[in-house]
Amino acid sequence: MQNYIPNTQKQKNNFFELLYTNGNLRIGKLRNSIGQELLTPAFIPVATNASIRALDSIKVKELGINGIFVNTYHMHLTPGEDIVEELGGLHKFMNYDGLIFTDSGGFQAFSLGQAITDGVGKIVSIFSKEGRKKQTKQEKLAEVTDEYIVFKSHIDGRILKLTPENSILIQHKLGSDILMVLDECTSPLASYEYTKLSMERSLKWALRCLDFFKQHNKGNQYLYGIIQGGYHYDLRIKSAEFICSLDFDGIAIGGSLGTSKDNIAEILSWIIGYIPQEKPRHLLGIGSIPEIFTAIENGIDTFDCVIPTRYARTGTVFVNEPPNFIRDITAKYYKNLESRKYDFPIEQDCDCYTCKNYTVAYLNHLFYVGEISVMTLLTIHNLNFYNKLLNRIRQAILENKYFEFKKHFFQK
Amino acid sequence: MQNYIPNTQKQKNNFFELLYTNGNLRIGKLRNSIGQELLTPAFIPVATNASIRALDSIKVKELGINGIFVNTYHMHLTPGEDIVEELGGLHKFMNYDGLIFTDSGGFQAFSLGQAITDGVGKIVSIFSKEGRKKQTKQEKLAEVTDEYIVFKSHIDGRILKLTPENSILIQHKLGSDILMVLDECTSPLASYEYTKLSMERSLKWALRCLDFFKQHNKGNQYLYGIIQGGYHYDLRIKSAEFICSLDFDGIAIGGSLGTSKDNIAEILSWIIGYIPQEKPRHLLGIGSIPEIFTAIENGIDTFDCVIPTRYARTGTVFVNEPPNFIRDITAKYYKNLESRKYDFPIEQDCDCYTCKNYTVAYLNHLFYVGEISVMTLLTIHNLNFYNKLLNRIRQAILENKYFEFKKHFFQK
Repeated sequence: MQNYIPNTQKQKNNFFELLYTNGNLRIGKLRNSIGQELLTPAFIPVATNASIRALDSIKVKELGINGIFVNTYHMHLTPGEDIVEELGGLHKFMNYDGLIFTDSGGFQAFSLGQAITDGVGKIVSIFSKEGRKKQTKQEKLAEVTDEYIVFKSHIDGRILKLTPENSILIQHKLGSDILMVLDECTSPLASYEYTKLSMERSLKWALRCLDFFKQHNKGNQYLYGIIQGGYHYDLRIKSAEFICSLDFDGIAIGGSLGTSKDNIAEILSWIIGYIPQEKPRHLLGIGSIPEIFTAIENGIDTFDCVIPTRYARTGTVFVNEPPNFIRDITAKYYKNLESRKYDFPIEQDCDCYTCKNYTVAYLNHLFYVGEISVMTLLTIHNLNFYNKLLNRIRQAILENKYFEFKKHFFQK
Repeated sequence: MQNYIPNTQKQKNNFFELLYTNGNLRIGKLRNSIGQELLTPAFIPVATNASIRALDSIKVKELGINGIFVNTYHMHLTPGEDIVEELGGLHKFMNYDGLIFTDSGGFQAFSLGQAITDGVGKIVSIFSKEGRKKQTKQEKLAEVTDEYIVFKSHIDGRILKLTPENSILIQHKLGSDILMVLDECTSPLASYEYTKLSMERSLKWALRCLDFFKQHNKGNQYLYGIIQGGYHYDLRIKSAEFICSLDFDGIAIGGSLGTSKDNIAEILSWIIGYIPQEKPRHLLGIGSIPEIFTAIENGIDTFDCVIPTRYARTGTVFVNEPPNFIRDITAKYYKNLESRKYDFPIEQDCDCYTCKNYTVAYLNHLFYVGEISVMTLLTIHNLNFYNKLLNRIRQAILENKYFEFKKHFFQK
């Protein structure tokens, strides 16, 4: 197995290079202390438990995925940051040398807290019956106070307190490359008053996180501040002004982004000018194909989301078919002998391992009989689809043909 | 994707070559009509639904596995033999060109029938509490008559009748390389009288299967007769004499094999002399590591079993540690910080993908948090362990050092 020796002598300014800009469109390069690079804009798939679901780390690298997003709250519960640190940090633990982002645990204050009370997910499931139904069955497992977020573990019920300092300490021990400050992700149903109170608290926490980070960082980790403020102009501006005035290595945009990609575009247009050009920008929890275009043309460099991997596990694959670019391959076809029309890959011209080797008929069969290998195969296809799309977008930006490409892509 | 064009011109005698013998120890080569070869003795992992659980077909080939065992009953239910035939047969459907064995569906007459009434599995679970518990919850789903086996589908409850003729027809349409005659696998708790009646019925069915097969075979499929008779000397002899007198391409040994590897050895010693030397012999549903040695030194060429793949999915891995050669890697270690002692691969000297890339600490973590990728990783290790063992056994046979190797292997 490889040894991951971070180069702690490297200068901070090696972390992000802005290679090209054209209006809000940007091409950049993030680099971790091991020397691995990630071209931006980049989609960062979620590896909640230090593992992209249904794929092992070597396969992730083979797919050309050089950045992943690990959840601090989950890793704190299992196996715990002390064990990960003892085992040499996330890169060595997972055998993955690409860029590892960790969140602060603050998102779980929402997903295990107010999201359950309100019966909503981050954006989409606010209008999703299934989301409400699933979540109302659960008990609220998180509460936010001025001093900390208190959790009841979803695994064993033990009580955990997350302060700004220990969120950073956990991430420090996990050994991720990019850390996030502790913040509260407010519910899309939160009042203006609560969103304001929460945002102001998050700013105080951001300062405490930065102080603590500076005391402990060995020069091989990078901290992002997070702009909060929900779907309220004045709150977003206040948060952006404050966060961008501090010495963060990058800036993330979190919290409720409204209920559509137009809302996302609007919120980004308010705040993007406050972020220094030379700092990388991460949009938390986005997204679908249309949302990715929205993020990129509003100045975002990276974004993380469970969509391609979670969809894969339920039999939904990405295809070049606007406006949604998805197809359900679990539809039954056994009753009428029409199987020959499924005797082809998911996409005829796709170069992924799954499309090169298996037909929709076979994948459908595997899904129907419950073989888990199909989850791996569809995850490969979906991540490859996202990867190819991001490659083409970066190419189009460099050729000054982004909007031409976008138009063509949505018309195809 | 590859096209699988069977060479229907090839002579039958291309199917099996006996390369070397030394007493009951044999080295041989099976060859399918696509031209793929399988060196024997060989372990044939089970791919119930035309898929080795947790592995896709290309990975199976990459592991050097050139023979798999598909269950006819399951394939008849989903997607159905007509669909598989329309899609070009199992090889093309799965994208797997190695040797494909199919059973007749007769084993499910036991596993879904009397095994449920008796609360037993084939051998091991007769004494396994868990096996009994699991099975007594179920309704008996199969009955055997002189004319057919009647099933109630475990998927949708529909009624299916399996006759000798349609068992062969289904296997013919599936396009497997090696087909089995319809037989009844009797329960280890069956009386002498029932075992006798059942064995004699299976002989009649064997004849009908052979007749039907000869009418339909295009020269690219091979049919095995099956010796039944439970743990009764006279019944095994009668069955062996009859089955071995017929024009089968190979001979399988089925039914209850007693309750230990010594019983297996005894039964094989009764009948192996009746099987013509030039015919390949398959032992159905075996086995564990000690059982494999028993089979090989009693003249068996191939054997199929779910053990390495099923164990993998429950966190049990194969290691060079006699007498059981297994280790449970799901044991918890989180509470006391002893993780460093798990910071190594399953086996230090193992050349498999899993051992080259991941530590026990990480695999254990993946198992604990329920990541399905660990099932794939452990399946790879276990199948590689079996493969390496069979390679070494074949080498030892060729070097006239089999018993020396065996002694060393069990003492290590």
